[in-house]
Amino acid sequence: MDSFDPNAPETLQAFFAPRSVAVIGASARAEAVGHAVLRNLLGGGSAAQAFGGPVYAVNVKGGEILGLGAYRSLAEIGAPVDLIVVCIPPAAVPALLEQAGACGVRAAIIISAGFAEAGADGAALQQQVLQAARAAGIRIIGPNCLGVIRPVLALNASFAAAMPAAGGIGLLSQSGALVSGIVSYAQSEGFGLSAAVSLGDKADVDDAQMLRWLGSDRATTAIALYVEAFADSRAMFAAMAEVARVKPVVALKGGVSAAGARAASSHTGSIAGSQAAYAAAFAQTGVLQAQTIGDFMAWARALAAQPPAPGSRLAVLTNAGGPGVLAADEASRQGLELAQLSDETRAALDAVLPSVWSHGNPVDIIGDAPAERFGAALRILRAAPEVDGIIVILTVQAMTDPEQAAQAIVQAVCSGAALPAKPIVSSFLGQAGTTVARLLDRRGIPEFDTPERAVGAMAALMRRGSWLRAQSASVIPPPSAALDVGSLRAQIAPLQAASGGALDLAQARALLTSAGIHYNAAGHAHDVDEAVAMAERIGYPVALKLVSPEVIHKTDAGAVALGITDAGMLRRKCEEILNNVKEKVPGASLRGFAVEQQISGTELIVGARRDHDFGPLLIVGIGGVFVEVYRDVAFRLVPLSHQDALAMIGEIRAQALLNGIRGFPRVDRDALAAVLVRLAELVTVLPEIAELEINPLVMTATQGLVAIDARVILASPSRN
Amino acid sequence: MDSFDPNAPETLQAFFAPRSVAVIGASARAEAVGHAVLRNLLGGGSAAQAFGGPVYAVNVKGGEILGLGAYRSLAEIGAPVDLIVVCIPPAAVPALLEQAGACGVRAAIIISAGFAEAGADGAALQQQVLQAARAAGIRIIGPNCLGVIRPVLALNASFAAAMPAAGGIGLLSQSGALVSGIVSYAQSEGFGLSAAVSLGDKADVDDAQMLRWLGSDRATTAIALYVEAFADSRAMFAAMAEVARVKPVVALKGGVSAAGARAASSHTGSIAGSQAAYAAAFAQTGVLQAQTIGDFMAWARALAAQPPAPGSRLAVLTNAGGPGVLAADEASRQGLELAQLSDETRAALDAVLPSVWSHGNPVDIIGDAPAERFGAALRILRAAPEVDGIIVILTVQAMTDPEQAAQAIVQAVCSGAALPAKPIVSSFLGQAGTTVARLLDRRGIPEFDTPERAVGAMAALMRRGSWLRAQSASVIPPPSAALDVGSLRAQIAPLQAASGGALDLAQARALLTSAGIHYNAAGHAHDVDEAVAMAERIGYPVALKLVSPEVIHKTDAGAVALGITDAGMLRRKCEEILNNVKEKVPGASLRGFAVEQQISGTELIVGARRDHDFGPLLIVGIGGVFVEVYRDVAFRLVPLSHQDALAMIGEIRAQALLNGIRGFPRVDRDALAAVLVRLAELVTVLPEIAELEINPLVMTATQGLVAIDARVILASPSRN
Repeated sequence: MDSFDPNAPETLQAFFAPRSVAVIGASARAEAVGHAVLRNLLGGGSAAQAFGGPVYAVNVKGGEILGLGAYRSLAEIGAPVDLIVVCIPPAAVPALLEQAGACGVRAAIIISAGFAEAGADGAALQQQVLQAARAAGIRIIGPNCLGVIRPVLALNASFAAAMPAAGGIGLLSQSGALVSGIVSYAQSEGFGLSAAVSLGDKADVDDAQMLRWLGSDRATTAIALYVEAFADSRAMFAAMAEVARVKPVVALKGGVSAAGARAASSHTGSIAGSQAAYAAAFAQTGVLQAQTIGDFMAWARALAAQPPAPGSRLAVLTNAGGPGVLAADEASRQGLELAQLSDETRAALDAVLPSVWSHGNPVDIIGDAPAERFGAALRILRAAPEVDGIIVILTVQAMTDPEQAAQAIVQAVCSGAALPAKPIVSSFLGQAGTTVARLLDRRGIPEFDTPERAVGAMAALMRRGSWLRAQSASVIPPPSAALDVGSLRAQIAPLQAASGGALDLAQARALLTSAGIHYNAAGHAHDVDEAVAMAERIGYPVALKLVSPEVIHKTDAGAVALGITDAGMLRRKCEEILNNVKEKVPGASLRGFAVEQQISGTELIVGARRDHDFGPLLIVGIGGVFVEVYRDVAFRLVPLSHQDALAMIGEIRAQALLNGIRGFPRVDRDALAAVLVRLAELVTVLPEIAELEINPLVMTATQGLVAIDARVILASPSRN
Repeated sequence: MDSFDPNAPETLQAFFAPRSVAVIGASARAEAVGHAVLRNLLGGGSAAQAFGGPVYAVNVKGGEILGLGAYRSLAEIGAPVDLIVVCIPPAAVPALLEQAGACGVRAAIIISAGFAEAGADGAALQQQVLQAARAAGIRIIGPNCLGVIRPVLALNASFAAAMPAAGGIGLLSQSGALVSGIVSYAQSEGFGLSAAVSLGDKADVDDAQMLRWLGSDRATTAIALYVEAFADSRAMFAAMAEVARVKPVVALKGGVSAAGARAASSHTGSIAGSQAAYAAAFAQTGVLQAQTIGDFMAWARALAAQPPAPGSRLAVLTNAGGPGVLAADEASRQGLELAQLSDETRAALDAVLPSVWSHGNPVDIIGDAPAERFGAALRILRAAPEVDGIIVILTVQAMTDPEQAAQAIVQAVCSGAALPAKPIVSSFLGQAGTTVARLLDRRGIPEFDTPERAVGAMAALMRRGSWLRAQSASVIPPPSAALDVGSLRAQIAPLQAASGGALDLAQARALLTSAGIHYNAAGHAHDVDEAVAMAERIGYPVALKLVSPEVIHKTDAGAVALGITDAGMLRRKCEEILNNVKEKVPGASLRGFAVEQQISGTELIVGARRDHDFGPLLIVGIGGVFVEVYRDVAFRLVPLSHQDALAMIGEIRAQALLNGIRGFPRVDRDALAAVLVRLAELVTVLPEIAELEINPLVMTATQGLVAIDARVILASPSRN
């Protein structure tokens, strides 16, 4: 046992492929959890769904339970037990685990509640359980969880209501109730799962370990992850990055709204983290974030069964005009492109379709289409190089045989096996969960109840493909000049001691300039003549602000003048400002004027703050007042690559503005990305900086990116 | 027959409640439409689904078809026939209708194609059919349609694959294939329809007539309308306004994207109209526009079965934490508020729930909740005055009895019948279409497969409620001073003759000022001294522009100066402009300067254009360059009430900006609405104006709304 490494993924194998299972606290009372779990292991009345290996009932009172003679203890079984499912009062669990170690048990699912979530005594108990488990080399899932389901082995070690069919989706959920719900949903929609796990309070096995295990599990072809809050967000960030590189991962984050976050914290006790940071973590690691259960499962089904798309040009094959139109509309909303059919493809379709076919995409093969017409058209689209993915839509009319059509589709797909991989999904409207839908699903063609859901699933396949291509095309940018950390730290130290909080603009400018950010020209003039000389040096137009610690709201006090175009105007404005302030803030100390070059161009915002869970979080977006109006911003975490920064910029909605419209200069994306990477380095190496923001950072036509304003908040020294 | 009014809704009654039906062109060949229709009328093998009245098969060759002796002609039947379903070649239809008139037939569904959609000959044939029908007092649905389904009378006069259950949704679809698809979908999801109709090529009965009939049909409690393009958009606008006032209407518009519109025009031959105009028509008449089939049906189901909500405060009752969190997230996305439970409500829940309930909303009654717990909690929420609508979520665990829970829910709802109406919908995850779901649905509680769909349905009930309240609270605004149409027309006439196209700014300003729009002060100065005098009168800052017909791109030519603050600067700028233009546009005629008051504030856009289908279409939104970047605009049609204008302003996303942030003045919504109403009047009475746009219209802190720029395009005189 010395070599027992609790973090090795293979130690989780016993949860999913045990040779034998015992239910500790098995019960004859139908309403008891220890009854439900045993019943599930025995197949819930269906022999086909019973676990294939030995299943033992253990109850201190013995007796007969669900036809099994119950053992009074684990030791009494006298045969090897790999996995135990624990449904006994919490206080009895530490002793049980000691015993289990002696009996060679390798894994324990603790369903019982009453541990860390129940206060200090429970937490102490949980610590004992963990120590006993570590000593015995036993891994623990739970406590306070629903259990584990492994359909391909007919292993239902949970109190879910049913066993789903075997399929490719590995479900890892923070909510046990969601696992139950999805098990029912999978049955009604007719799709399968490779594994379903709720980890409960994660005393031992945590989400990152389980995610890695699913990543290595060959039965799992796509992972569906429901989360409200990660226990260790940085560990999950690393695990997601590692796993999503080799296997598609779809995430559903509960608690993205204020109301949802309150609900999440009331039911799990954990604070649902910042939506922006989670969204950044998913986007940055290539995890596709769904917003609803419907999308969550639809995307996972498609990704589990179909290859990622080689591009984003969609073909829609349909026997139904209206639903074809609606699929085209939805494709447009999802940012997919309808493939422009080539002359060759149209000619090939002309040869097999009646003359009234749509002669375009959607390929409408008309309501009376028999099965062969579906097959023939699909073969042609499957081979068409201008098509990257295909959605097949069928509505049933009195003359339609949907089962034959499904078979023709399956055959057409199989016959194209030698062609380059290209995803195909289907929607036979109103056939979800029927024999026809199952026929398609079983042959790897996911069937969805509506065209829009099929389009959403295809969009996931196209986004996955595009992400994988971007990864492989990843270019390492030239290294930026290294930050002089020592000198920056020396600059910060006195400020931190002196202010401990927000820097003033001059301090913030100085710091960011040292870090390599280019600021507009500016200076501090002690009197009017000096201001004029400075303005001549900087070049008109300039902005003028009184320097006075007592004048906080400069605009309100009339202490700011913009758009000054010559020396005469500058002198007049200096005078006006002095008069205004004498009147509005009598007694204010007058320390001269800040003279700044006035810059015009596209106003952006860049910045970084520290997320409670994920650490430094970068922001970029459209700046100025519109930040608050449209919140057109994007986020990423550190470490931030040049490519991450470009992807982040690509998420800004106002792409038209970035591309330069109406005389606005085109934003230099590489330069902007370089600023973001620089800020990411800065906040990574200098924890002294709690938060920083440059708004506006102006994209100018002649000088590139120029910072104008800045807000820098230092952490209080005690916190470092 | 003299008194036959083809537009009276009661003339449509024979399609939905015929005493007897004959299939003309009934066929023994299984693949023929005339076979499918007859089989559907006979119940498709199920006696329970067979039409109750006499069904006759008519085939020129006689013989036996599906167990019926076929008549060789209508006349041979020798008994009254109310409705005929026509499946014969088009050329034979006119003669058939003459015969049908003699036999007392009142309604004909023409399924056959080959009329107006097939070219000039077909169009002539269609004209003959229509004349024959008018002469005989017969109404026609079709040609080229799927038919009519009336489940409550077991009347399936269509070639859809099946008959849906009877329910409250009246489906009117431009696409026959969508009717087939929705019939299947209704079966699989377990909901019912009151009627389903596809009108095909609308030779006689059109969508407005059919919509009015559904509005008057007592079996129909909500109307679902699928459209790609209305035949007569203004007639439908009127019909929707009339019907939606008394009955909820949900619309799904196909072809809202460019790709979708192309697909729609390829399959119906009609151009899918402008998305903005359709969206405006729906919003203005109180029709709820869905974007997907899933929402279309979910909203219709909820509106058909449940009352509109008295407010927008939602309660979520759940036995499942995660799904409850997700419902809260979705509610937030849909703009619903989670009700803040009162102390009384919490105390009442404390008394019936275990201590671990969530003590908040979502009301999480914990995974092991038995049926009574659902019932008790629902009774309390049903009676809570702070709750306007309730969603009940259940996921099934091994210990759950979903059927008992459903029954408890139904009982709790029934026992609250004396309480004020409050909508309730449910999501029993993964139970769509099962016995449990049908049990709930049959008792009027719609059950949806996922929590997000239930939230969407509740949002529809809340939007319906809010719209109805706004209608009843409708206040007639003080009448604006009448437009002096004669003088405006006199002003336009010479311009129209002279230019025939776009007015220049001075002309546009003059016209709009005459129409009561307030412009910034401005004038035309013939020389520098006059410009200075004018600027002094207007007040600084001013903007200066050269007046010269040859200088088109004034900014590029250096012929514009902004932010002029005094006379010295003005003189200098005049000189600069003259120099610039001499250099850049040598020989340009110099006609002095336009001097304009420079205004700052929130930049808005208002305007009107003429939609091809719906006529004048008003626009309002955030102006300036951001119009193109965020397209944050809203649309409405004429006639435009003050309240319509306010609703339109309320659709702008940047509400924070309208409310005044960061020193921007709060937008005076009544004043802005008045401008919109005025523009609506203007383009309504003056068809000479093809298009007009004021951008920016600036909301200022001191002068209210001030127009700065304008674009007015006149229709070419020949077109009036």
